[in-house]
Amino acid sequence: MAIRAYILINTQIGQTQKVVEELKKLPEVKKIDIIMGPYDIIVEVEVSTYEDLSHILLNQIQNISAINHTMTCPVVE
Amino acid sequence: MAIRAYILINTQIGQTQKVVEELKKLPEVKKIDIIMGPYDIIVEVEVSTYEDLSHILLNQIQNISAINHTMTCPVVE
Amino acid sequence: MAIRAYILINTQIGQTQKVVEELKKLPEVKKIDIIMGPYDIIVEVEVSTYEDLSHILLNQIQNISAINHTMTCPVVE
Amino acid sequence: MAIRAYILINTQIGQTQKVVEELKKLPEVKKIDIIMGPYDIIVEVEVSTYEDLSHILLNQIQNISAINHTMTCPVVE
Amino acid sequence: MAIRAYILINTQIGQTQKVVEELKKLPEVKKIDIIMGPYDIIVEVEVSTYEDLSHILLNQIQNISAINHTMTCPVVE
Amino acid sequence: MAIRAYILINTQIGQTQKVVEELKKLPEVKKIDIIMGPYDIIVEVEVSTYEDLSHILLNQIQNISAINHTMTCPVVE
Amino acid sequence: MAIRAYILINTQIGQTQKVVEELKKLPEVKKIDIIMGPYDIIVEVEVSTYEDLSHILLNQIQNISAINHTMTCPVVE
Amino acid sequence: MAIRAYILINTQIGQTQKVVEELKKLPEVKKIDIIMGPYDIIVEVEVSTYEDLSHILLNQIQNISAINHTMTCPVVE
Repeated sequence: MAIRAYILINTQIGQTQKVVEELKKLPEVKKIDIIMGPYDIIVEVEVSTYEDLSHILLNQIQNISAINHTMTCPVVE
Repeated sequence: MAIRAYILINTQIGQTQKVVEELKKLPEVKKIDIIMGPYDIIVEVEVSTYEDLSHILLNQIQNISAINHTMTCPVVE
Repeated sequence: MAIRAYILINTQIGQTQKVVEELKKLPEVKKIDIIMGPYDIIVEVEVSTYEDLSHILLNQIQNISAINHTMTCPVVE
Repeated sequence: MAIRAYILINTQIGQTQKVVEELKKLPEVKKIDIIMGPYDIIVEVEVSTYEDLSHILLNQIQNISAINHTMTCPVVE
Repeated sequence: MAIRAYILINTQIGQTQKVVEELKKLPEVKKIDIIMGPYDIIVEVEVSTYEDLSHILLNQIQNISAINHTMTCPVVE
Repeated sequence: MAIRAYILINTQIGQTQKVVEELKKLPEVKKIDIIMGPYDIIVEVEVSTYEDLSHILLNQIQNISAINHTMTCPVVE
Repeated sequence: MAIRAYILINTQIGQTQKVVEELKKLPEVKKIDIIMGPYDIIVEVEVSTYEDLSHILLNQIQNISAINHTMTCPVVE
Repeated sequence: MAIRAYILINTQIGQTQKVVEELKKLPEVKKIDIIMGPYDIIVEVEVSTYEDLSHILLNQIQNISAINHTMTCPVVE
């Protein structure tokens, strides 16, 4: 059973589109939208295992330098 | 051009699934997920005009009594 | 010199328009808008003295029962 | 591999100890502390599968009526 | 050495002054102010031991029914 | 029908007035106030279309380097 | 009538004591405490006029470079 | 009687594991977990006196440069 999560991202000012380009390179990222409100970007990811979710957060998304803060909201199946 | 928005919803405790059932009745609601983190539900809506977005918020979603708080994040096209 | 402040208001679900009607009765309220995002209503008030600002908050706005939370942001002149 | 998560809980005023008693009944709850700061209680849960985490949130913890809000923070392995 | 803490309090709408009256009855409460911004009341308490701080929070302040939320910020000596 | 929005802005420390000067250059900005509370500046913008709102956010306001964070609250008509 | 306000301050990591030393130089600052919780420092200021409150915020406190964020909560008299 | 506290930590992007390594060097730190949600790391500390809690916060944890923000939640005994 796939595990899905939404990640709410705040970027450095003026870097939103650059971060979107970086996120597009990740195959686990199924959807990206730039949004208004307290967050800049909302991403939907889908992975196979819980460890994969940890991996993409720690070793891929957190390596995009123009990101200020990420908040991961796993989907409750 | 359609206007899309994500709505982050907090429900009264124990009422999350009931709110999901109510939301499913709205044709503008394209996707609903129950999530972990500071919000209980994330909804993706799609409408034709900006006034429609106002309408669905004020006259439909805000009438679901078991909702405590909604935060609308329109998508930046 | 007049003192101005913005008040960000969260209402009980479904009560936003009712709160707007109550706020319209207050002469110090110069502008009211229903908004998207983490707040439901934004109000701009203008008073003559700092005590008047305290008064309208404590004795008028806080008496509108369908309000859940208010956050007052005085304008820095 | 067990899945662990911290759950940050806000209770209705004066109901913190009552909520603690309810939480103690859940075998998945390994640790409970009442804390100062923006949250009232912090709970550590341990489950076998991701679905179990969903289950305990939706069908057990969310049924403790004196809880106002829960925020689940799954542990990244 | 006395232990001091600030407690930031949100009250039910229209109940701020009533909560202030209740707080004034507690000898550990050294100062009370009604404030603008995201909180309604700020209280400064002083106790002799860390257990006393726990006690006044759980068994006294949390029993004032018109309070919605408290956030305790102990002073770092 | 014009679309209006309030934008709540946090600036780098000591840069509030400099950001105000930059914002004044944008014709869509109808009103700017420096405020107390959790935000530093509140701006009211008015545009003709929803795409214009996206444009001014992404390509103009987000390019003011001394801004730390923006939160856009579109007005519900 | 004096105007009082509490200012909740977040500092850059490791700079809390340095910021306290800077704040101590301001005669309007009547009390400073380092605290636990979501804020690092709480300051109580007292000024004669509303304009003075604006002045000390914009031209003095906001010039302390090691501050990340300030939130001013004027006291309601 | 030992004093325990949870510390919720936000790190600079991509620095979470580095901060964990620094925290492991502190004997007062009994448990560290990287988590999803609005915080990056949760730490449980145990000290003998209230002053020790102040000391470890101000002089040790706040000196880990890759930390953006800490929120200390002392346990209510």
